[in-house]
Parts: sequence; C-alpha cells; structure tokens
Amino acid sequence: MKKHNFSAGPAILPHSVFEEAAKAAVNFNNSGLSILEISHRSPGFSAVVEETIQLIKELIGVGENHHIMLLSGGASSQFYMVPMNYLDPTDRACYLDTGSWSAKAIKEAMKFGHVDVVASSKEENYTYIPKSYLLPEKAKYVHVTSNNTIFGTQIHEFPETDIPLVSDMSSDILSRKLDMERFGLIYAGAQKNLGPAGVAIVIMKKDWAERAKREIPSMLNYQTHIEKNSLFNTPPVFPIYVTMLNLRWLKAQGGVSAIQERNLEKATLLYDEIDRNPLFQGTARKEDRSHMNVTFLLNNESLNDDFLTLCKQAGIENIKGHRSVGGFRASMYNAMGIESTRALVEVMQAFEEKYG
Amino acid sequence: MKKHNFSAGPAILPHSVFEEAAKAAVNFNNSGLSILEISHRSPGFSAVVEETIQLIKELIGVGENHHIMLLSGGASSQFYMVPMNYLDPTDRACYLDTGSWSAKAIKEAMKFGHVDVVASSKEENYTYIPKSYLLPEKAKYVHVTSNNTIFGTQIHEFPETDIPLVSDMSSDILSRKLDMERFGLIYAGAQKNLGPAGVAIVIMKKDWAERAKREIPSMLNYQTHIEKNSLFNTPPVFPIYVTMLNLRWLKAQGGVSAIQERNLEKATLLYDEIDRNPLFQGTARKEDRSHMNVTFLLNNESLNDDFLTLCKQAGIENIKGHRSVGGFRASMYNAMGIESTRALVEVMQAFEEKYG
Repeated sequence: MKKHNFSAGPAILPHSVFEEAAKAAVNFNNSGLSILEISHRSPGFSAVVEETIQLIKELIGVGENHHIMLLSGGASSQFYMVPMNYLDPTDRACYLDTGSWSAKAIKEAMKFGHVDVVASSKEENYTYIPKSYLLPEKAKYVHVTSNNTIFGTQIHEFPETDIPLVSDMSSDILSRKLDMERFGLIYAGAQKNLGPAGVAIVIMKKDWAERAKREIPSMLNYQTHIEKNSLFNTPPVFPIYVTMLNLRWLKAQGGVSAIQERNLEKATLLYDEIDRNPLFQGTARKEDRSHMNVTFLLNNESLNDDFLTLCKQAGIENIKGHRSVGGFRASMYNAMGIESTRALVEVMQAFEEKYG
Repeated sequence: MKKHNFSAGPAILPHSVFEEAAKAAVNFNNSGLSILEISHRSPGFSAVVEETIQLIKELIGVGENHHIMLLSGGASSQFYMVPMNYLDPTDRACYLDTGSWSAKAIKEAMKFGHVDVVASSKEENYTYIPKSYLLPEKAKYVHVTSNNTIFGTQIHEFPETDIPLVSDMSSDILSRKLDMERFGLIYAGAQKNLGPAGVAIVIMKKDWAERAKREIPSMLNYQTHIEKNSLFNTPPVFPIYVTMLNLRWLKAQGGVSAIQERNLEKATLLYDEIDRNPLFQGTARKEDRSHMNVTFLLNNESLNDDFLTLCKQAGIENIKGHRSVGGFRASMYNAMGIESTRALVEVMQAFEEKYG
C-alpha cells in the first residue's frame, strides 16, 4: 500500500531522491566508494557543494549580490547567530511573534540586544498573523517567521518597511515566489522543503547590515563560512548531498513557480473540504492559512481516534496535530503529490458518510 | 577492483553499514517510509537515539555517572562550547599544543578566559607529543588532542594530574581502551571511527565542573541537550542512524579491546615496513606514532607521483599526505581490514624493487 506521509518535519521528499541517495550510500558517482566515506574536500564532494549553492541561487532567484551558506545546527542555531552577528547591545531589532518558533527566536535575541516584539497573536493561540502594528523608523532588522508549522498560519503579505527583513523560512522556503530584494537574510532548516535533517541554509544580502562589535567564535561568525564557502570544517556531507538531489528534482519539476501552483492546488483542495464538510473546522483564520501545514479539528473531538484509524487504513501517516493545537495537521510540502491530498479528502468524506 | 580507502576523514566505515544505511534510505524498519522523511520524535527514531547512546556507554565503558550528547557542528563547535560553558573570564585552563586542531581549540578558548599553553611541539612541526611540562595546581581543565590526524602523532600516556582532562578524541575515539575516570569531558566529530560527517558526540562526567557564569544561547548550553536527551531541536537524523549501525558493528567485532588489537596489528605492519624499507621514512617520533594515521615520506620526494600512481593501480585511495607534512598519510580507522594495510605494504615493496 502506498504511504502518504503528512509529517511536519523531517518530512516527505521525492521517492526518486531516496533511491538516488541509497545508491550513493553504497557507490557514489561510480567511484566504488560510499558518499559516507569520502573527504569533504574531494573533487566529488566539492562539486556537490558548488551545485547545491548554484541550485539554491537559481531556484530562489538571487545572484551575485547574495551569499549562500550551508550550515549545521538547524534553524535553532540561527535564532542566536543572527543577533550574535548583527545586534550590538545598544541595537534594536523588531520581532513579530506568530508562534512557538518566533517565540524561541525572540528568547535567544534578547540575550544580545534590545528586542521589540511589535505584535503577537499569542493570546489567541497564534491562530492569525498580526497585521496592524507600527514599525519604528530605525531598527537593525525586522524578524518574521514566514510559515508557522505548528499553528498552520503563513505570512501572505510581508511587512512594508525600509528596514531589512530577516525571515525564518524553514517550513515554506522554495514553496512560493518571493521578492528576495526585501530580505536582508533568510534562513531555513532543511528538513521540510529542502532536504533531510542535518543541514540549514542561510541566504544573506551581501550589503545588508553592519556587523556587531563583539568577539564571536569562528564557527558562529557568518564571515568564516562565507570566506570558506561553507567548508571551514567538515560539513554534514550526506544531508547536503540529498539536498542537492532534492533541488535537482525541484528544478526538473519546473522550479518554484510550477511547485507554487501545485502547492496552491493541494491546499485549496483540502481547505475546501474542511470548509464544506460539516464534521470538520479549520483552526487558522482564513486569510492567514498556510499552504504548507493545514491544521483542522473534528467538531466532535471524541471521534479523533476513529478518524486516525481510518487514515491509517488508507496509508495516511503522521496526520495527528501538534499538542498545542490538537486535532489534525496535514503537512503538504513540495514533494507531496496531489494524490495524497485526494486520499485524505476521500477519508474525510468517508468519515462524513459514517458519522455525519 | 576492491578499493582501499585510507582517507583521513570523513573516512572508511564497514561495507555492511553502507548497505544497511542504503536500505533505510528507502525503507526504514519496513515502515514503507525512508529514514530521511520520518519525524525525529517518532518511536522509530527515538529508539535509534536511545540505542546509540547506550552503545556509546557500553563500548567506551561509562555508566550512570556520565552524560552522552549527540550534537551537530562537529568537533569545531566543541572548541568554543567547552570554554563557553566552563571557563569564566577569570578562570584558567591549560592546553597542550600538539597540532593544528589543538591550535584551533586554543584560539577559540582564548575568547573566554585565561589559556595557558603548557607545552607545544609547533617549532618542530608537531612531530612529537611534549611530555615534560609543569601543570599548575589549580586550573579548570587540561585540554589535549588525543590523536593528531595531520601530524600522525598520538598521546600514549595522558598527563598525570588531578585536574580534569578534556580531550578532543575525534580521530581515535573507540579505537583503544582508556580509563574514562580521568576525563571530565571528551568530544569527537563522528567522521572517523564513529560514523559519517554531521554529528559529534560529547561524553561528560556528571560532576566534573562548575558551570561558567555567562549567558549562553540555549543551543550552546550543554544543559539544554542533557535535559532534552539530545532532542532539543531536530538532530541530524541520518548521521545518528549510521553511527548507531557502526556502533552495532563494533560491538559485533568484540568491542574496543578486540578492535584495539587489530588496530595495533595494522599499525605495526605498516610502521615495520616504513622502518625496514630504505626508500621511506616516518615523520613522527617513534614513541608518539599514531595507530590511526601513519605519516611517512619517500626519501626521494621526486618519486612521490610515481608512488601515488602505483597505489592507485592497486586500488589504494586517499593516501596523499596533508600539505603541512607532505608525503603520504595512511589513515587506518577501525573499519579498515588488515588486507588494506597489506595491499599498501605490498605496493611499498614493489616500489622498492623498482627504484631501490
């Protein structure tokens, strides 16, 4: 039976990527050696790093004015690396609090400088993206979380400001076209749309901000990784390789524009069913709904386990909601085909027939 | 033709590990899902983390008095995490400078407190391990690099002192029996004897030292990872899984005592040939020779390329020396069978016949 993997992350990647990754784990590029045993400074792996960086640039639409870094430590490390590198103790940064990940980013930034939380939807359990708030005239940056994996919300209009935006895009990078000129820096853990767990990417405008005046360990200084082209120390070789395979796949699909259409199609199909089906309700405000993570509830929560059982029987995996929201969460990243969304919608309809 | 992979790191792992890793990249535990697409909080992966930690404890010989952490960022991140967590600005730590990695650790530590470099072999291009030096009565820790991958030296007798030892064991962890009671903390990047690139381990005595009084980002605070059992954020899932497979293999080989014998046998075979063969010489002082990385030169360096060609023809890969030493380096980690050492010795003998 085909499995439909709705996991929030680490998450689905194309099956062809798994097969190519498996092949390289035994014999990389017909070298007779595994990708797991070769030097990160070998010509074979240098080419992987080069291609990964080029594919990111091409797919996201940036050129020579941006640095790309492949780092370890996930987005969680960027929560402190951004302020450590850019926020002097007397500097001010603005943060929009739209969920658990924003809150963690805020907590880490407060260790380095002044943090203005310009708006928060915490009091309504992060069911929406705050929109009417004032930004100061001057701040080092405005930090936003573009998509909130846990709460199923997504920023569809980024704040209009001359202050550089910094965005955690872990769960929606490369899922939609964005004007990269508005962002000073974006970062993303790989394990949703980019690749497997174990690598994170940072995309930084070359001229975006003045560096903070503090002593920073070499490994935490962006400049180190820029100068060494992400090869200052041994990088996570296999996660980077699989990321490259996944980016090749995305390019072959027609790139970000093509995948954005397919993502919209999947999201529309599922949200339409949630709105139509009298047994279910969505948890996020309609205008802020995420196209990546669809959060929804059964009106009668005592039926939750029955619904999960029916899902399991249809090969639908990892659909249970996060404990802070409850109910269900369908994460439908780039690699998910619409047939998986259809399978879920069919189960919802069968459930309606049974209990409606 | 069988390839003999003498790479210094990332390095050889058992072929059976590559095959199992490849299988899981497509279908993990017969779940129908790849290990690359499952949640790090799934029961399947929780069991992997648990088993990895238990195997490390069992194989290295520590129990409930030690914490084990699986972290990202390599040993290079431990260079600053150790002093960040333990060295107050007024504290003193002693460092033994035995090579490039020691020097990097020293550089990062100096950003946090007083660093005494108690001895250095830099002036003789790190060809030996300094032995007669004075340690102060009181210091927070003494930092050593147990094996110097680049210079082919290894500490065979650790300093006798009541001060807790901190050791970078990246290139010889689990290759020999050590008295773990003497170490406050050891760390190692995985990509030699532990697993593939992308994960590092830290083994810490529970009571070893008082924490430094500074604000530390959550991700850089050992306490965070101890409390969350290495699952504070999304860990490098696949590198941890492959590490577990490799540790299972090591256990099946008879554990560290058995592998230590085999490592000694390989090292003896190769050093004996270097000492016997009039065309070659070793670079490290005999009493400090590494059992992991054997560095040697041709007396007539103009023949270097000819020797490399002959090696290549015999399936011997990655034998070229690091630029700081020149000549050749044969890294013979746990997973290398003695037949690979024999293949190299045979090429050295054939070379002698041709040019001797």
